[in-house]
Amino acid sequence: MRRFGSYMGGVAMACGAVAFMTSASTRSAADASSIFITKIPTGYRDWKLISVAHEEANLNSFAAVLGNDVAIKAYRDGTLPFPDGTIIAALHYRFVPSEENNKAFGQTQSFVAGDPTNVQFMVKDSKKYASTGGWGYGHFGQDGTPGGDALLKTCSPCHAKAVRDSVFTRYSR
Amino acid sequence: MRRFGSYMGGVAMACGAVAFMTSASTRSAADASSIFITKIPTGYRDWKLISVAHEEANLNSFAAVLGNDVAIKAYRDGTLPFPDGTIIAALHYRFVPSEENNKAFGQTQSFVAGDPTNVQFMVKDSKKYASTGGWGYGHFGQDGTPGGDALLKTCSPCHAKAVRDSVFTRYSR
Repeated sequence: MRRFGSYMGGVAMACGAVAFMTSASTRSAADASSIFITKIPTGYRDWKLISVAHEEANLNSFAAVLGNDVAIKAYRDGTLPFPDGTIIAALHYRFVPSEENNKAFGQTQSFVAGDPTNVQFMVKDSKKYASTGGWGYGHFGQDGTPGGDALLKTCSPCHAKAVRDSVFTRYSR
Repeated sequence: MRRFGSYMGGVAMACGAVAFMTSASTRSAADASSIFITKIPTGYRDWKLISVAHEEANLNSFAAVLGNDVAIKAYRDGTLPFPDGTIIAALHYRFVPSEENNKAFGQTQSFVAGDPTNVQFMVKDSKKYASTGGWGYGHFGQDGTPGGDALLKTCSPCHAKAVRDSVFTRYSR
């Protein structure tokens, strides 16, 4: 089991960084929950790499962005919008200096992934998640607990700013 | 094919960051070549994630560190030294700010993987590479061209400083 910290966010899935301002605010809590991911997708830690990212400021996060086979194929083929079944995972860690690496280099220059903080998911289902651009969002904290609705409602309006089907992360060859 | 830049290094495999100072300097060029990796291991871009890293200073690199199945099993089981057959790959990219992400966040805070620059490998074969701690090192630049012996000879003495069987990168859960 991953250890998770209490802080939020990252780059690929950056929920919580933007104030809650979606029309979902008018839905009941029960309705809202149905558009979010409440179970961690099986086997995500074995998925292939999409890319990496770092956020400064309050997040101070290091992210590894992985995709299931549908996601990887779509990225490699340049398929947009992403097909139903796509799942993108952002594994977030603390961004920490590495004393061991710095010692080897003889200078301060090295940063590595520290403790895991959270993992976030985007799941494409154009019908189920039609009200949020076809994407369901999920956030799982330190002990695997899903993020609350207030947090998850911030995902979609922010991701809507990404020009490639609400996805910020580009594929790294 | 990955695009590769002209600069070297990263964190998991940080060849070139330390002056050449191994006893291999007394070997002939032909002998030296035999201890280095001269072919890119097949399928490495599909391998599983070990961790991520960032180097500042001259390197300014973003690294995704991947492992073949032998490597991943050893990491997850805590097996040290790594068994023969282990291959660790460090995919290096430029560390660049993301204007698109910063715009979404409303502030400058986001860094992503830019152009690929090089990919480096460590291959464990305790007999073949006995003279370099059981590890063969490889570096492949922009066009897939292997790094020269002068560069590759810097890998082993630097990695020997890593306490876990010459491997700097720790596994991120």
